[in-house]
Amino acid sequence: MTVRQLSLPELAHTCARLGIPGAGLWREPVRAYGVRAAAGLMRDLGLTVTSLCRGGFLTAADPAGRNRALDDNRAALDEAAALGTDTLVLVSGGLPPGSRDLAGARERVVDALAELVPYARAAGVRLAVEPLHPMFAADRCVVSTLAQALDIAERFPPERVGIVVDTYHVWWDEQASAQVARAGAAGRIHAFQLADWTTPLPRGVLNGRGQLGDGCVDLRHWRRTLDTAGYRGPIEVELFNEELWSRDGAEVLAETAARFSEHVAGP
Amino acid sequence: MTVRQLSLPELAHTCARLGIPGAGLWREPVRAYGVRAAAGLMRDLGLTVTSLCRGGFLTAADPAGRNRALDDNRAALDEAAALGTDTLVLVSGGLPPGSRDLAGARERVVDALAELVPYARAAGVRLAVEPLHPMFAADRCVVSTLAQALDIAERFPPERVGIVVDTYHVWWDEQASAQVARAGAAGRIHAFQLADWTTPLPRGVLNGRGQLGDGCVDLRHWRRTLDTAGYRGPIEVELFNEELWSRDGAEVLAETAARFSEHVAGP
Repeated sequence: MTVRQLSLPELAHTCARLGIPGAGLWREPVRAYGVRAAAGLMRDLGLTVTSLCRGGFLTAADPAGRNRALDDNRAALDEAAALGTDTLVLVSGGLPPGSRDLAGARERVVDALAELVPYARAAGVRLAVEPLHPMFAADRCVVSTLAQALDIAERFPPERVGIVVDTYHVWWDEQASAQVARAGAAGRIHAFQLADWTTPLPRGVLNGRGQLGDGCVDLRHWRRTLDTAGYRGPIEVELFNEELWSRDGAEVLAETAARFSEHVAGP
Repeated sequence: MTVRQLSLPELAHTCARLGIPGAGLWREPVRAYGVRAAAGLMRDLGLTVTSLCRGGFLTAADPAGRNRALDDNRAALDEAAALGTDTLVLVSGGLPPGSRDLAGARERVVDALAELVPYARAAGVRLAVEPLHPMFAADRCVVSTLAQALDIAERFPPERVGIVVDTYHVWWDEQASAQVARAGAAGRIHAFQLADWTTPLPRGVLNGRGQLGDGCVDLRHWRRTLDTAGYRGPIEVELFNEELWSRDGAEVLAETAARFSEHVAGP
């Protein structure tokens, strides 16, 4: 999504050329290209599919909406398995229209996960619950902190349900480091994503994720925190940013790799 | 600030006419009108000055910036005392330009409070630390949760340093209710402010505070939570909202009072 202006083959070939060993993919372009074709494209270039984004949106209160969401997540699990990734990122969903019941919505996420876990087990895919920044609590994700995500994940086996650490969503939280340690000790860090925090936030706040190094997040500190917690998986850079999307995608990807070296990698 | 289109006399007379028993005032209009004149205006109409907004911005790392901030807060304490309010609301300030050190900025807030507390005691004014929503952590307020604000406040006597509960900033936080109880038991709830949460957030996110009832915050639940915690002080409605500012101020104030009755007051 960082370079959504690139087609899937352009993304894969540019990654391969730049020495980027894998990419997290999104469902829409994968389905448009064909799931098996996408899997073959990545495999032929020696690239890992680090995760599939995204399932979730499990907060519907009405049975029909809930069943649609469960079906969609089962489809996402099938897609993840076909792509050869072990991780499906879940964004929980926001409050149903007109609702003011955050606690109820959070509980429905747990109930839905309980239904999805057997399917995930059969597919060999992990459900990675991503807390989103509290500014998304109303309309996108009622799971707002790593502590909440872990409280949810811990009701299920660690090889099946874990969490996503995304610096953009948790950088402000002084409890986050301790929660990363808690997640690492339990083997529940299923994905690690980077974006920087820049201001002013744009209208709607979704597409304000900053290029690495442009903002106020100490990204290397976060990478070290994940290291210390025992995380050895891939590190994804996930930027939703209108300005980056308006530029040449290969150039943005090269810039992002350079920023990663400058602000994330190394001691 | 909810009706900043009204002059101070217009605000005061409209409050009196509507039976609104007091108002939280902001420093800039008070100073423009004259602090003593403002105090007399409110007193003559039988209105309480519920709080003064705002001091704070205590995160500067350079000595000159820090001293300017301390001087400004001492002036704000003098103004609060002259207005006859016992509460100065503090917004801590964000990260200094170029800084990525949240923990350091938070520690400087504590250091600055330690310098201000004797002055506040002499002025007979309480310092009320307001946690702002985490979306403001970078550029406005490094204190993001009630737990953090209380951790800071508890280093000082409760009659001198407490916290502000603002529904807009804390509604998403599942720890907030417990923290309100903690604050209430310690006599540290120094102010209670209301706004609703509406989406989409506007660019810059500052002026998106929703009119009571327009959003997803269960305001009556929050008022009851404060009741249960023993809070008996004033309830302020603080809306920064371009649409409300563009309308007739007296009409907005009447609407706000009606919304308060509908969504906040009563069992």
